[in-house]
Amino acid sequence: MSTPVKGAELIISTLASNGVDVTFANPGTSEMHFVAALDTVPEMRGVLCLFEGVVTGAADGYARIAGKPAATLLHLGPGLANGLANLHNARRANSPVVNLVGDHATYHKRFDPPLESDIESLASPMSAWVRRCVAQDDLVADVESALDAAWGPPRRVATLIVPADLSWLEATGPSLPVGKHVLPGAYTQVQPGAVESAAKALQAPGRAALMVGGTAARRRGLDAASRVAAATGAKLLCETFPAALERGAGIPDVERLGYFAELAAIQLEGVTTLVLADAMSPVSFFAYPGKPSDLVPPGCAVYVLAAGADDAPGALEALADLVGAPQVATGAPAARPAPPTGALSAKAVAEAVGATMPEGAIVSDESNTAGIYMAGATAGCPPHDWLCLTGGAIGQGLPVATGAAIAAPGRRVVALEADGSAMYTLQSWWTQARESLDVTTVILENRRYAILELELSRVGAGAAGPVAKAMLELEPPPLDFVSLARGMGVPAERAADAEELTAMLARSFADPGPSVIVADVGRGIG
Amino acid sequence: MSTPVKGAELIISTLASNGVDVTFANPGTSEMHFVAALDTVPEMRGVLCLFEGVVTGAADGYARIAGKPAATLLHLGPGLANGLANLHNARRANSPVVNLVGDHATYHKRFDPPLESDIESLASPMSAWVRRCVAQDDLVADVESALDAAWGPPRRVATLIVPADLSWLEATGPSLPVGKHVLPGAYTQVQPGAVESAAKALQAPGRAALMVGGTAARRRGLDAASRVAAATGAKLLCETFPAALERGAGIPDVERLGYFAELAAIQLEGVTTLVLADAMSPVSFFAYPGKPSDLVPPGCAVYVLAAGADDAPGALEALADLVGAPQVATGAPAARPAPPTGALSAKAVAEAVGATMPEGAIVSDESNTAGIYMAGATAGCPPHDWLCLTGGAIGQGLPVATGAAIAAPGRRVVALEADGSAMYTLQSWWTQARESLDVTTVILENRRYAILELELSRVGAGAAGPVAKAMLELEPPPLDFVSLARGMGVPAERAADAEELTAMLARSFADPGPSVIVADVGRGIG
Repeated sequence: MSTPVKGAELIISTLASNGVDVTFANPGTSEMHFVAALDTVPEMRGVLCLFEGVVTGAADGYARIAGKPAATLLHLGPGLANGLANLHNARRANSPVVNLVGDHATYHKRFDPPLESDIESLASPMSAWVRRCVAQDDLVADVESALDAAWGPPRRVATLIVPADLSWLEATGPSLPVGKHVLPGAYTQVQPGAVESAAKALQAPGRAALMVGGTAARRRGLDAASRVAAATGAKLLCETFPAALERGAGIPDVERLGYFAELAAIQLEGVTTLVLADAMSPVSFFAYPGKPSDLVPPGCAVYVLAAGADDAPGALEALADLVGAPQVATGAPAARPAPPTGALSAKAVAEAVGATMPEGAIVSDESNTAGIYMAGATAGCPPHDWLCLTGGAIGQGLPVATGAAIAAPGRRVVALEADGSAMYTLQSWWTQARESLDVTTVILENRRYAILELELSRVGAGAAGPVAKAMLELEPPPLDFVSLARGMGVPAERAADAEELTAMLARSFADPGPSVIVADVGRGIG
Repeated sequence: MSTPVKGAELIISTLASNGVDVTFANPGTSEMHFVAALDTVPEMRGVLCLFEGVVTGAADGYARIAGKPAATLLHLGPGLANGLANLHNARRANSPVVNLVGDHATYHKRFDPPLESDIESLASPMSAWVRRCVAQDDLVADVESALDAAWGPPRRVATLIVPADLSWLEATGPSLPVGKHVLPGAYTQVQPGAVESAAKALQAPGRAALMVGGTAARRRGLDAASRVAAATGAKLLCETFPAALERGAGIPDVERLGYFAELAAIQLEGVTTLVLADAMSPVSFFAYPGKPSDLVPPGCAVYVLAAGADDAPGALEALADLVGAPQVATGAPAARPAPPTGALSAKAVAEAVGATMPEGAIVSDESNTAGIYMAGATAGCPPHDWLCLTGGAIGQGLPVATGAAIAAPGRRVVALEADGSAMYTLQSWWTQARESLDVTTVILENRRYAILELELSRVGAGAAGPVAKAMLELEPPPLDFVSLARGMGVPAERAADAEELTAMLARSFADPGPSVIVADVGRGIG
């Protein structure tokens, strides 16, 4: 105890000494003391983003790769609001995030100044934990509670609201540096009964499937799940949008459940037993008239092997042993597509990526309909991570790529972006340029919201009339992503054909720093 | 009664037949039936925006100029979340908005699909009214209730949440076209006592001030307030950020209360009586250590002449008559600054705008520190409207300009944008190009968050250290707004000096369609 320091500095110090050493920030007046504290706490790296959706998405991407939380720094209710869509994705990814929101000074709120709003109401839907700091001498405890909440398990979004006066007044907390008190919460071993039930179910007559997700979509879980599948004949599936799927040559390849319920129904057809390892029970992304929401086939029994705070990889390993699985998992064979030639298409773009993607790549995938060939074309690439649109909130891809690159210097990040999706949080490129991040963005350009054209008919709205059709078109005017990226300091070019695209990708993967490559995939779906 | 039609079509029809004939939209799967309905209800104009913050800001700008609500179309919780910051500004502007949010089908929500979230919790802080549609045959009543809520008075943001199944099922509401049932709520006459109290207060010994805002910042209110000031010697002030201030040659010129408390304190110094006409009592935008939040001088008596649902212009007219004011208000003299010459600066940019701005212009002002000369340089321009950052949520300027242009074909919209602010919702430019809107954006480029550099010292965080300083800088890399605007189909150029800027402005004001002009204002404040 107790050198008095300002509250903001105490908060930043406590985070840094607990291993949280990156803050993605779009600060305002109420956060100025946090910004000032970056000079006195050099262990904390501040990363400026020009829009809050980039802040929160970057924190998500960082967490998925670093395996630990970053902090955010957001300005009051409206600043938080701009970051909520990507906090939604982070929540669905079970990413640990310490979400710091500045607020008006305690005594100022009653005047209802222009920026006043109900921050708790805004934060709650996308946070597993929300607290408002109220006592100067509790700030360290508040931060440690936020860290505890973020670490879980499961990992979560924890929002800490800090009134401006608490950030600028001196607090007599523990003397600096505060020690590391908060450790990652350990996942808990599942009850033996759960493993035995799953084993029995998988070995019973009928058709079995084992679905992995979340923490089970990493190497350990995949190896074990693959061994289980080999021993039991169960079909091995992965949830539709895993937060971070480890894949590539030598790693068991898992088939992801289709986004379209029609495809998922085929994948699950005839399955009588479904075992879930940190994956939610299959449900249609949206409802469609006359179609079931629940994608579990009628009569199929569902067993939850592991969920929430359970150690899913450990449970899968126990399961593998129990079913007498082979000790070694079968990984995907090393294979790359031949470099494509000729005209660009969704297929050619996927092949170009597959032909060139370097080992250790991190793919941030928001390619949507234009990306349907990507999984196949990269399955045999050197080992890499695949980050998916966990919560379905568009605008995730570029921010997540940005945060992932901060988390993993030396690894190449590949952002696969549909043109419509790229427009939500394109400010990410500026941060990529500013921080010299090794991110290659591939814009898969089809000049419309192709997914919505499909959805329009799937929801029974019939063939689009001319007005509706125009509402799903991204031209006129055409978007020029080369110009947009250059405007934010990122080198960009447009590929004329498959050969040029392949060469551009290879060059981008070899050169340090960010780049944007635009590839026209035509107007067909996929 | 009762041709069955789909719910979405019934909702769109009910809006259109009640005079709400513009929808700003960024739809998703759950809103597809609304998009389809645009073909069957041609009275409704759909305006596509590529980000939800543009949708809501455009609805706000539209309402401020059209004086009636537009509808929005937003996709579930995350889509709403992206639009909340500008709904916050709309709420603070008392703009009527019918905020339509699609949700999952009623029976689908219990599966907690990826996009599920608590929409009510998100909507409530920025909405005066929130309702979820629950019964197919109540849809018309729901829409009419939303319209009632939006019309107020005061005008408000009304959020209607529409589950997807209610949009696609047939409803047996009234037959189409449904009639116009909902009329704008009439503002109510204030009690005579309020007018008399204000008159007495203004005529008592001491120094009096009359502050207008909201509905009193339009011509009628300004004329009356100016007459009151002439008769009583009261100082005439306007709230800091009025939603839409009518000003220019022939219109009474009012001094806006300063954003900086230090300036506001000077403006209010010695005031012993303050009368408010639809303006909130002066309060500091933020709290600063050791400074008062309440800007009303100690001992000053505050009288509320009109607020909320009160007819503020009517009350001001009654007040003017009661104090024996002259029948005719004194308007600002017609005057324009001389076209500036030489190097660009904040002052030169203001003079260039003042020298060229056409009659009937609508200024969307998010110029922040770089815009401090704007009010002075344009006070004697031909009559125009000035739209301010009502809620302080950055990213308002370009969307509000977009919506204002939809509301007022034939009038030139001038968006005065600080570079940092422009980056929040730059997607607005695409909609401006698509809809061929007459919007001229002037980027006042100082390459940093200059306001925050000021705020850093004002909140007592001391001189910025090198890290903090860098966090408030918008370079490296520099932003190239010419490239950004062209990337979205808007012609753009950079002015090299004041002469070039003036010529570019004049040309832009004469030519139809949008354009962006970048002006470097140097690194000094203002």
